[in-house]
Amino acid sequence: MRIESVEFFYAAMPSITLEADGSQDALLVRVVADGVVGWGECEASPLVSLAAFVTPRSHGVCQPVSASVLGERLDSPADIARISALVARNSMDLLQAPHTYSGIEMALWDLLGHAREEPVWRLLGYDASYPKVAYASLLFGDTPDETLSRARSATERGFRAVKFGWGPFGEGTPEADADQLQAAREGVGRDTTLLVDAGQIWGEDVESAALRIPALEDARVTWLEEPFPAHAYAEHAALAARTRTLRIAGGEGAHNLHMARNLVDYGHIGFLQIDTGRIGGIGPAKAAADYAAGKGVTFVNHTFTSHLALSASLQPFAGLADHRISEYPAAPKALALDITRDHLLPDADGRIAAPEGPGLGVSVDLDRLGGYVRDVEILLDGDQLYRSPQVGGVAASSALHGIGRA
Amino acid sequence: MRIESVEFFYAAMPSITLEADGSQDALLVRVVADGVVGWGECEASPLVSLAAFVTPRSHGVCQPVSASVLGERLDSPADIARISALVARNSMDLLQAPHTYSGIEMALWDLLGHAREEPVWRLLGYDASYPKVAYASLLFGDTPDETLSRARSATERGFRAVKFGWGPFGEGTPEADADQLQAAREGVGRDTTLLVDAGQIWGEDVESAALRIPALEDARVTWLEEPFPAHAYAEHAALAARTRTLRIAGGEGAHNLHMARNLVDYGHIGFLQIDTGRIGGIGPAKAAADYAAGKGVTFVNHTFTSHLALSASLQPFAGLADHRISEYPAAPKALALDITRDHLLPDADGRIAAPEGPGLGVSVDLDRLGGYVRDVEILLDGDQLYRSPQVGGVAASSALHGIGRA
Repeated sequence: MRIESVEFFYAAMPSITLEADGSQDALLVRVVADGVVGWGECEASPLVSLAAFVTPRSHGVCQPVSASVLGERLDSPADIARISALVARNSMDLLQAPHTYSGIEMALWDLLGHAREEPVWRLLGYDASYPKVAYASLLFGDTPDETLSRARSATERGFRAVKFGWGPFGEGTPEADADQLQAAREGVGRDTTLLVDAGQIWGEDVESAALRIPALEDARVTWLEEPFPAHAYAEHAALAARTRTLRIAGGEGAHNLHMARNLVDYGHIGFLQIDTGRIGGIGPAKAAADYAAGKGVTFVNHTFTSHLALSASLQPFAGLADHRISEYPAAPKALALDITRDHLLPDADGRIAAPEGPGLGVSVDLDRLGGYVRDVEILLDGDQLYRSPQVGGVAASSALHGIGRA
Repeated sequence: MRIESVEFFYAAMPSITLEADGSQDALLVRVVADGVVGWGECEASPLVSLAAFVTPRSHGVCQPVSASVLGERLDSPADIARISALVARNSMDLLQAPHTYSGIEMALWDLLGHAREEPVWRLLGYDASYPKVAYASLLFGDTPDETLSRARSATERGFRAVKFGWGPFGEGTPEADADQLQAAREGVGRDTTLLVDAGQIWGEDVESAALRIPALEDARVTWLEEPFPAHAYAEHAALAARTRTLRIAGGEGAHNLHMARNLVDYGHIGFLQIDTGRIGGIGPAKAAADYAAGKGVTFVNHTFTSHLALSASLQPFAGLADHRISEYPAAPKALALDITRDHLLPDADGRIAAPEGPGLGVSVDLDRLGGYVRDVEILLDGDQLYRSPQVGGVAASSALHGIGRA
């Protein structure tokens, strides 16, 4: 097969709040090769990411992502790895490139899976897709009472694991955080796994983070996620050295395999959380899962958006039976659910698994998506460099085919 | 002062080749606060970087760069650090943000320098701007003869240090590379400092890189630059452990201070090369210089573009007398020279220094720039989200003022 076209669909809620809620917009990618269609999703600023696909080249290693994708052969997983290496080389100085390419890479796997009528996890070499406990990923309430109520509601919905993050956590006093943690534990009950996401709130301040360790361990929190920025390895390791039962988690900021490995090797994390929509797709996420497994670190998906992204993020560790927990966007905006016709619903034991269907095993609902799609047009010296494809009709006159290959 | 406007000027050569020559286009930034003007330059894909300034927000920590800059107070270096922290927080999930913001941050320093009638290096706390040996930064020739001739020509122009990079180096046999290195040494003569840039050509392959060590040491090469990708710390350290006289250099890929520190601490580099147009500007570059100095690592600027970028990249280590070498774009495209009226010319000893004039000490030549400027227009749902400012006339109707603050 040969890659004929790559199209981006930028969808957004009518109003975007300042919450740390990544389900408010989406950048979907549709790739076609020899008439076979694959879909992916970038976890990234949509306008910036599509600009990275069509931008004029700056020099040999600052080329648009399109230059390494359009027209390439796609017959095997090895072709995907080859295209990924091309992007890494030719777009070396284009910082946004990994976020753009992540959605494309997912779509290449989906496409290949459809062509071979195999689920992606089988193409990755796994024999089975093992169920994982879905943890409900929620934002802290503004008050402990609100957190308590969200925790109860998640448990009532059947979740066996719940994560709270962002909101006021880490911004006030350690005592205020302790109140939030007690409320969360009370709300989920004794037997539910409880996780906390600090959202990099402490910068490089290990002492401020360490002040929260007693309350986190009292509430039997399994992991504290992203206490510091993604590259602050020494700080992660310093905090990890000061815990007894708590583990440090991180990895969503990894935009290449090296960053994932570095968090394990230098940051001493206990849980590696990878977003296939950021790290460059399913291939590097699988390599990160293998690396984590070899180092005794638990691999976890990072997903806060659609069920397309959820399926893509489950594939890399679908066959790792011992890596048993998975992030589940439990309260996304309507857009995130409307993206796909199919949804990965937790079973009676609160578990989800990468689908058995071909490719990513979910189908995109372009009709429902139509109501959310935004129309982007980029003109360079008056000429159309990019125009969004039309949804529900004939594709708009688009310079997409062949862009970047002149 | 209050930041009134941030404008981007995207300039490019009429034809962009596939050479690894970063001087073929430029993204200049003009910031105005209370009528005082400052200029900066992003070392980045121009279209993608300006898109990161105006993109609609995705959520609370994936906001456009504009949201953290426009309308902010600017009265002191502390304000610049405060704005930098805002960008890091509010644009956490926007990968391109550091490249966009680097040019803005430079412009904030330039503006503050003009307001106080002080050179930026003085605002950074330095008492003097020490001259540095300018190394001519050149691409390897396609053949050893071509490299020999470029080396001779650089020495004849008075350069006391010469760096060759990219081209065929590392792509063929170790013997072919040895021929290139011998030609380079022969061309520059016995007493000239010789440096080599591998441009990440070996991926993660330490053995392939190590095969070149004997020829590099025979040619008395001071440093081997970027043998591997910017995040491959273990590989950098493994290679460094196998050299006798050669040192490993790296850092241009650092898009935050952590990455610079990590290359020192985990990569065991001997020279830290920072591009202020990528790392987030002059503030983090100065912090990286201080960190390097404290660890016995030599700080060097990375600059392959204009003399505005060159001045900005010299400021962070202007006052470090013992850090004596600096990159000098010795064969840039015409655009790179036409950007400024003033140029930093090597003295009789082949040395350059950060200028004594206020701010960055160079002025942008908007008239000459006019011939290179590209006109970008971005429409979102038919509404103008961005339009390039006009050069040499009244600014075009632009949504820039207030963008991202709605």
